[in-house]
Amino acid sequence: MKRLLITGAAGALGRAMRARVADLAEVVRLSDIADLGTAAPHEEIISCDLGDAAAVDRLVEGCDAILHLGGISVEDKFSKILNANLLGLYNLYEAARAHGQPRILFASSNHTVGFYRQDEPVAADAPMRPDGLYGVSKCFGEALARMYFEKFGQETALVRIGSCTEKPTNHRMLSTWMSYDDFAALIACVFRAPMLGCPVVWGISDNDSRWWDNGHAAYLGWRPRDNAERFRAELEVSPGRPEASSPLAVYQGGMFTRDPIFTEE
Amino acid sequence: MKRLLITGAAGALGRAMRARVADLAEVVRLSDIADLGTAAPHEEIISCDLGDAAAVDRLVEGCDAILHLGGISVEDKFSKILNANLLGLYNLYEAARAHGQPRILFASSNHTVGFYRQDEPVAADAPMRPDGLYGVSKCFGEALARMYFEKFGQETALVRIGSCTEKPTNHRMLSTWMSYDDFAALIACVFRAPMLGCPVVWGISDNDSRWWDNGHAAYLGWRPRDNAERFRAELEVSPGRPEASSPLAVYQGGMFTRDPIFTEE
Amino acid sequence: MKRLLITGAAGALGRAMRARVADLAEVVRLSDIADLGTAAPHEEIISCDLGDAAAVDRLVEGCDAILHLGGISVEDKFSKILNANLLGLYNLYEAARAHGQPRILFASSNHTVGFYRQDEPVAADAPMRPDGLYGVSKCFGEALARMYFEKFGQETALVRIGSCTEKPTNHRMLSTWMSYDDFAALIACVFRAPMLGCPVVWGISDNDSRWWDNGHAAYLGWRPRDNAERFRAELEVSPGRPEASSPLAVYQGGMFTRDPIFTEE
Amino acid sequence: MKRLLITGAAGALGRAMRARVADLAEVVRLSDIADLGTAAPHEEIISCDLGDAAAVDRLVEGCDAILHLGGISVEDKFSKILNANLLGLYNLYEAARAHGQPRILFASSNHTVGFYRQDEPVAADAPMRPDGLYGVSKCFGEALARMYFEKFGQETALVRIGSCTEKPTNHRMLSTWMSYDDFAALIACVFRAPMLGCPVVWGISDNDSRWWDNGHAAYLGWRPRDNAERFRAELEVSPGRPEASSPLAVYQGGMFTRDPIFTEE
Amino acid sequence: MKRLLITGAAGALGRAMRARVADLAEVVRLSDIADLGTAAPHEEIISCDLGDAAAVDRLVEGCDAILHLGGISVEDKFSKILNANLLGLYNLYEAARAHGQPRILFASSNHTVGFYRQDEPVAADAPMRPDGLYGVSKCFGEALARMYFEKFGQETALVRIGSCTEKPTNHRMLSTWMSYDDFAALIACVFRAPMLGCPVVWGISDNDSRWWDNGHAAYLGWRPRDNAERFRAELEVSPGRPEASSPLAVYQGGMFTRDPIFTEE
Amino acid sequence: MKRLLITGAAGALGRAMRARVADLAEVVRLSDIADLGTAAPHEEIISCDLGDAAAVDRLVEGCDAILHLGGISVEDKFSKILNANLLGLYNLYEAARAHGQPRILFASSNHTVGFYRQDEPVAADAPMRPDGLYGVSKCFGEALARMYFEKFGQETALVRIGSCTEKPTNHRMLSTWMSYDDFAALIACVFRAPMLGCPVVWGISDNDSRWWDNGHAAYLGWRPRDNAERFRAELEVSPGRPEASSPLAVYQGGMFTRDPIFTEE
Repeated sequence: MKRLLITGAAGALGRAMRARVADLAEVVRLSDIADLGTAAPHEEIISCDLGDAAAVDRLVEGCDAILHLGGISVEDKFSKILNANLLGLYNLYEAARAHGQPRILFASSNHTVGFYRQDEPVAADAPMRPDGLYGVSKCFGEALARMYFEKFGQETALVRIGSCTEKPTNHRMLSTWMSYDDFAALIACVFRAPMLGCPVVWGISDNDSRWWDNGHAAYLGWRPRDNAERFRAELEVSPGRPEASSPLAVYQGGMFTRDPIFTEE
Repeated sequence: MKRLLITGAAGALGRAMRARVADLAEVVRLSDIADLGTAAPHEEIISCDLGDAAAVDRLVEGCDAILHLGGISVEDKFSKILNANLLGLYNLYEAARAHGQPRILFASSNHTVGFYRQDEPVAADAPMRPDGLYGVSKCFGEALARMYFEKFGQETALVRIGSCTEKPTNHRMLSTWMSYDDFAALIACVFRAPMLGCPVVWGISDNDSRWWDNGHAAYLGWRPRDNAERFRAELEVSPGRPEASSPLAVYQGGMFTRDPIFTEE
Repeated sequence: MKRLLITGAAGALGRAMRARVADLAEVVRLSDIADLGTAAPHEEIISCDLGDAAAVDRLVEGCDAILHLGGISVEDKFSKILNANLLGLYNLYEAARAHGQPRILFASSNHTVGFYRQDEPVAADAPMRPDGLYGVSKCFGEALARMYFEKFGQETALVRIGSCTEKPTNHRMLSTWMSYDDFAALIACVFRAPMLGCPVVWGISDNDSRWWDNGHAAYLGWRPRDNAERFRAELEVSPGRPEASSPLAVYQGGMFTRDPIFTEE
Repeated sequence: MKRLLITGAAGALGRAMRARVADLAEVVRLSDIADLGTAAPHEEIISCDLGDAAAVDRLVEGCDAILHLGGISVEDKFSKILNANLLGLYNLYEAARAHGQPRILFASSNHTVGFYRQDEPVAADAPMRPDGLYGVSKCFGEALARMYFEKFGQETALVRIGSCTEKPTNHRMLSTWMSYDDFAALIACVFRAPMLGCPVVWGISDNDSRWWDNGHAAYLGWRPRDNAERFRAELEVSPGRPEASSPLAVYQGGMFTRDPIFTEE
Repeated sequence: MKRLLITGAAGALGRAMRARVADLAEVVRLSDIADLGTAAPHEEIISCDLGDAAAVDRLVEGCDAILHLGGISVEDKFSKILNANLLGLYNLYEAARAHGQPRILFASSNHTVGFYRQDEPVAADAPMRPDGLYGVSKCFGEALARMYFEKFGQETALVRIGSCTEKPTNHRMLSTWMSYDDFAALIACVFRAPMLGCPVVWGISDNDSRWWDNGHAAYLGWRPRDNAERFRAELEVSPGRPEASSPLAVYQGGMFTRDPIFTEE
Repeated sequence: MKRLLITGAAGALGRAMRARVADLAEVVRLSDIADLGTAAPHEEIISCDLGDAAAVDRLVEGCDAILHLGGISVEDKFSKILNANLLGLYNLYEAARAHGQPRILFASSNHTVGFYRQDEPVAADAPMRPDGLYGVSKCFGEALARMYFEKFGQETALVRIGSCTEKPTNHRMLSTWMSYDDFAALIACVFRAPMLGCPVVWGISDNDSRWWDNGHAAYLGWRPRDNAERFRAELEVSPGRPEASSPLAVYQGGMFTRDPIFTEE
């Protein structure tokens, strides 16, 4: 690839991927509204508000792949979600349509299905059950991506990230954790696949404990290598096992199912 | 019921329902941004832009049921859809949450699944395949309604309206048509059901030709009586049968699948 | 048929069927532990406790069809259910095995699936979710019948009766009601079918409101004719519509889901 | 339509349809290897062996619709089935490909699924379980039609005819019977549909007793009107009810499941 | 855990687990009607007939987890199964309800589905097909457990044990075998899970040959490590490969499908 | 086994298996119309045209297992496919029926489902979607085998071979490749299984990238060991990655979906 765009590159996930995906493209274009530090020789840095259509258009121009990590990634006020995750995503897809339809990996979320119980396996094509406004915005995003695929042929991987962090920090993450390395490997698979289509992919490592199965997307050839299980003993000590009735133990979305609607001021 | 709110009451569908649902409540509150004429004795008329949160809050106060027909109902510029169908719907659900969670009938659309072929039956829980920005906004609406149901207990009927018109005007509508009387009967079923939940209901009459089945929602006791078939002979004459390769004959969403993305100016 | 045995013939359902199925066999043998009145010319009356293996053996001898309505039909102490519905059913199937395997219609119950919600359609092969000890005993009965079918070829119709009464008396019964005439017609279908197998059949009339579908058992040729809908207006007046949160409105098993475990004294 | 070709027009089914479909096209071209009598003014008669590629090519030329009833329609020697149903069908599809791909209604058969039991509903997309060489040839035919659809866009209705006769003559036909009028109505639906695709359609009337459901093909708008049930009483007298263990009562394919492989001499 | 109760602790399986689960609780309470030998320092031994409600109540008091291996575990007279597996299980669940609802692992059995063929994969929620009175009693047990879960929140793991033995001793056990170590690991998973619910778990090792898949229960984090395959060569020598038509080769329940009903004397 | 017949033994696949399966039987009978070289001491060589019934009968006599690799294995003229794959297969099954029904492994093909897209997982019981006349002939073969199984008890493994070659030579084969060793191991499993039935088995190695899952056939105990992934880097260099729109990237059948119908001269 010539140029890979990473949006949301200043976030925790963006920073973790910045190094790991460097070899996927000749140039990596990094974007965020937060500070991105200094560009390495193979990097370009562009500050961009996703809600600004013209800026997004310029951002996408010249890229042949997009790792879209940008936008609001937790529950927040609807006005902020509206700008970044609804309007912002529309801007991104319009820009992609204008500039040769570079392939997109869209960071969707397990919070699209957060109200399923943890003892229910969820198929990738099961009805969505979002657990908050953030989750609803990701449902919107998947629907938008699907429409651009069917109508215009735009390919997107809809990666429903579980918990992509340095390591799991509670029992729920024994099931939802995806290691940085496994995510980086998935990114490579998504951009190397001769034909991508518009699949849902569950973003988790090869955890002993799990609710989701990627059998339907095995054509991508992704085999995650890490396993949250090696952290179990440590988590039993701290933070300890949640109560059986805690949202952390009951719902796939965990504590998000308890988040209130944030007040606009 | 004491007071039923009808949004979008000045539209074609709103006007057709205005008379037909008069006996469902003591007072019918009608709302739109367009002119609604003179209020009958049992009616209240309130002009309201759905994008105005405070106005929507006042609109919903005091109602114990909402027939939500408002918003953009065809493909349009994203800015307009954003205001009425995304922000507007959020405003409506927040207002409902603030005022006792009156039951809602949400006018969703077959354009949430418009890219299924006409020879594919579509289950109510099948993955959505919207055919444009309008369809995407209805996917958002269904996701939002579902979230308010799971999180707060807000009940909504997600009625995926086919074509609710005086009579069918092309071959596709032999399958998608819902008569005004059948819709009125459905509205009555939705508001009388002891428990509603948050079901998807296909909004079609008892047409000989059909792609959708409401067996999963038979607990509502709705049995449509009309049948588009009686208009077939007339439609064969005019406008005549579509070509086999026309979107009108191929896709459930018909010509919407061909709509371009509307340009913002 | 030469001789049809009806167990539980003194119960409300037994009495209603006694007249209606008279023409299905030359002789109708009636059994119960309660008084059965005087035998008509084509009738035989035999008092029998289902828990008494020898008595059941004599009861079944000479019959070529069994309408098994006997046993406990509501929530009760486990000791009583154990005797009549567990031991009693075993006795019945052993007697049938000893005497030529007369075809059996087993009065199973919707309480085998009582914990499904009323907005969930339940397939005949869905996992059972009994709502009390009575429901559990019917799960046992279906499993026992199935085993005798697979192991010995004993045919049984597992009729999950909704509410078989003179007329519906609450909103839940708008969905669960089976008229006496429709049940009598089903009995005729079961005993006339050249091959019966061991199907689950939902025992309901052709109600507008329903949760169950008999499409899988259409080979029996049963088309119920009655419809609880004609009683809706009357039920809206009295007893009136249940609260949305009442078990009567939420669960298929209705109030049974609230029954306590009965204490043995 | 300008010209409708009926193959196998001299068979019982062909003769029954010859009159009933006269108004579907300006000219009806009739073909068979047996005598077809005198052509009516709107008819053309052409004798043709389906195994003769050149003859079939001439037969199809100029037709814009084909009702393919020709070929062997019962169990027979493989050499005969090979010629008419395998080679003959290939010839027909090649001829159609050469001449503008006229739409085809292919008379497939319930014997593609004859080994399902009569108490098992069979979905249109369930694996085939043919009951003899004849049934296998129809599986071949459906596969061939499907391939021409996917590869070349050739549309075909795969009508799995149950028993299309004047009236049912045994108990199995209470479930499999399709009246001549209902078949004629189906033919009209198949040729009038703006888009046909390549659906499986179960060829049965609206019988009370049935194993198959056409819900997946409701887009064709076919609603059969007849019901074999009105013949039940008569069939109970003669030929009488089959034994429970008779193939007539056990398998959907009935006695075909017992047919031997016919010996070539 | 403070105190773990093991019923049926004197049986082969109980003895094998007695040592392996010692570290799961501070105290292990062992119960059986057969002799249990001498209690180790961390053990309590209580003789108990499961059919005796008062004794079972005392047995359960003070325990916070129950490994229920007790009851009849092979085909037997119904009177014995009735006492231990029907009445006994009811007694156990009533005692659990009275004493804080300790989590239960219920030793269910593959004989709940014994009449499935060995070439049919069986989903955990597939209809039960028990192969004898023993299997029927396990169907009862699963239904009872499910009811206590839905009605009272009692959690149970329904472990359908294949063949839990030292090593496989015939070809069928190449598919059904669960090693003692794998079972002990499963027990640990069941009691450590923050939320258990009421899942069906197939009790088998990671055998190359298998009919069942535990994907639906992967949230428990159990990964069995043993594999019956390493015994294949040995089994080919002795006892040798079964005939293709032997129940050992045909049915999942193996020879149980041939067991007669045991005679009461 | 006493004698294993390999048809098509002179083809690439036949030659690769000839050595690998030598230890499965005392005698290996090799057949083809092409030259088979010199027979080893444990081998018999018989030249045979599958279209010649008498010759096939003699070929099969005395064999207790058949590895049927014979017939046309690529797209070709229908006359050739008719002789070898339709008539030839019928001859083979008739011969097997006449000679004790030796178990058969039938080399079916992924081209029975070639028109599924590469991003669609295909279940073994999904409707067939052949991609040419060759694929249609394999659909015929599977239907024929199924019929002989149901009617006469003839067991066959329907192995839908992906690409069984020395190593993968293009990107599509990263998903379809089966190594020779894995196929040899599958052959051993098929012939050693106490009960085989008539399963579909996907013939692929344990590739990272895959579209098919053999979970339904895990009772055979086959665990392939090879993985096409180790060839990916090499294939990226040559022949390089296919275009996203190439049949090689889009359809499971790859370039076969583009093959024309071959002309008979």
